[in-house]
Amino acid sequence: MTDDGRTMTPARVRAACRDGALDRPTSGFADGFVQANLMVVPREAAFDFLLFCQRNPKPCPLVEVVEAGRVEPACAPGADLRTDLPRYRVFRDGRLSEERSEVRDLWTDDLVAFLIGCSFSFEEALAEAGVPLRHVEACSNVPMYRTQVPTVPAGRFHGPLVVSMRPVPASQVPLAVRVTGRFERVHGAPVHVGEPAALGIADIGRPDFGDPVEIRPGELPVFWACGVTPQAAALASRLPFCITHAPGYMFVSDLTNASLAT
Amino acid sequence: MTDDGRTMTPARVRAACRDGALDRPTSGFADGFVQANLMVVPREAAFDFLLFCQRNPKPCPLVEVVEAGRVEPACAPGADLRTDLPRYRVFRDGRLSEERSEVRDLWTDDLVAFLIGCSFSFEEALAEAGVPLRHVEACSNVPMYRTQVPTVPAGRFHGPLVVSMRPVPASQVPLAVRVTGRFERVHGAPVHVGEPAALGIADIGRPDFGDPVEIRPGELPVFWACGVTPQAAALASRLPFCITHAPGYMFVSDLTNASLAT
Repeated sequence: MTDDGRTMTPARVRAACRDGALDRPTSGFADGFVQANLMVVPREAAFDFLLFCQRNPKPCPLVEVVEAGRVEPACAPGADLRTDLPRYRVFRDGRLSEERSEVRDLWTDDLVAFLIGCSFSFEEALAEAGVPLRHVEACSNVPMYRTQVPTVPAGRFHGPLVVSMRPVPASQVPLAVRVTGRFERVHGAPVHVGEPAALGIADIGRPDFGDPVEIRPGELPVFWACGVTPQAAALASRLPFCITHAPGYMFVSDLTNASLAT
Repeated sequence: MTDDGRTMTPARVRAACRDGALDRPTSGFADGFVQANLMVVPREAAFDFLLFCQRNPKPCPLVEVVEAGRVEPACAPGADLRTDLPRYRVFRDGRLSEERSEVRDLWTDDLVAFLIGCSFSFEEALAEAGVPLRHVEACSNVPMYRTQVPTVPAGRFHGPLVVSMRPVPASQVPLAVRVTGRFERVHGAPVHVGEPAALGIADIGRPDFGDPVEIRPGELPVFWACGVTPQAAALASRLPFCITHAPGYMFVSDLTNASLAT
C-alpha cells in the first residue's frame, strides 16, 4: 500500500470503491478510521443473526445495524453499502456463490445490514506501541483461519470461530494483549496465544483466508477473533442467502479508531 | 433486609419467589450474584427490542436472551422466568395494566425474554471500595428517575432514559466512577454527576420509581443508566403487550458479579 492510501479520507476510499478504482484489501487505507466487516441477511434471519452477534461479541462486535430499506449507515454519511466496499461475496444455500465489486442489483428492501468491527482498527494502536505488523510490512492481507472452536449458536446460526493471526515477539505479547484489550468493539484482546494446533489449525503456513506471513524465531502466533466468522456461519448454517464483504476488503467508516478505545 | 437475605443462594431466592414467600425489592439478597431486569416481548417485536438494547448498551446491557419456547435461562439452571421473580408488571397497549407475583397463565411459546444487567451487581464493588449505599442502609428501594434524555430509537422502540441515583461524597465520586466503570455489562460508569435539572429531573426528592433517599451535605447525586428504561420504552412506544419485572424486584441469577468485571 502506498502512503497515498494511508492518507486517503474514508469518503475517498468509498468513492474509489464505487468507481471500481480500488480492488484490494483495505488494511492500511484511511489511517485512523474504523473499518468494518459486512453481513447482510434477509429480515426473517435478522433476529437470529443479531442474537448470534450478542452471544459472540469477540468475533462479532457490532459497530452498527442498518435496518431494512436503508443503505446509508449513520457511521458513514453519504455512503452506499451496495457499492462502497472493494469486493463482496454472495452466499446462496450455504455456498459461496460469487464474488463481485458491487451488489446493487441484488439488494432489496428486505435486507438488514450488519457492520462488525475489524481488527484493522487496533493495528494502528499496535503499531504506535511498537508491535510489528508483518502483513502490513509485506503489503499483504492478514492471515485468517477457520478453527475447531465452536461459536455459541443462535437460532439457525452456528459454526466455527474464525481468527486472524499476527506474529508477535515473545517479549511483546503482554503489550499486544493490553493494547488490543482496550478495543472491545473491534474484537478486543486476543483469544489465544501460540499453540495453533490447540485451535485445530493444522498448518499455520496455509491460512483459510488472506495470505500467509512469516513467523520469525522468537515470535509467537497471536490469534484474535475475526469478523469473517459470520461467513463461516453462513456456510455451516446453510443460509439460503446473504451478502458479505470479501475477507480483508472492508467497509471504511467515518468513525475514528480512537473513539472506540475504552 | 436481614443478614439472612444476603447469604441466601440464588436458587433459594428464586424458590422463595416461586412459593410467594418473597415480595420485596431484591437489593442486598444473595450477595455476590448477578441480578437482572426482565423484558418479555412477543417474537414479532424481538428484533426491534434486541436492536434497541444494542443501540442503548448503557441502560440495556444484555445478560442473556431466552428464545421463544424456553423459560429457563442458561444463567440460572432450574429457574422458571414465569414464577421466579418477586413481582412482575404487565403492560398492555402502552399502559401499565397490572402487577402480579407470577405470570404463568400469560406466558406463551411466542414470547422472547431479555435479561438485562442491573446496578445491584456493582453495589457490592462500591461497598467494598467504601462508597456508602444510602438505600441499602435505609433498607429501601433505589430511587429511579425518568429523564428527558432520549434513548436511540430502534424500530418501534423509543423513549426516555431512566436512571438510578446514589448520593456519593464529593471526594469519592472519582472512585465510584472507576469502580463501576469495570462493570460494563451492568450499566458501567455513571452517565451523569450532579445537576439533576440537566437531566430534566424536577424534584430529586420525588423519584418516578423506588424510594427517595437523603442527600447529605457534601454529597452529589450520581446517576447510572437503569434497566427500567425498557419499561419507559414500552409506555412511550405503545407496545401492545409485554411483561417486565417490577422496578427493584429483580431476577437473581447464578452468575457471579465478579465474573462481569473487566
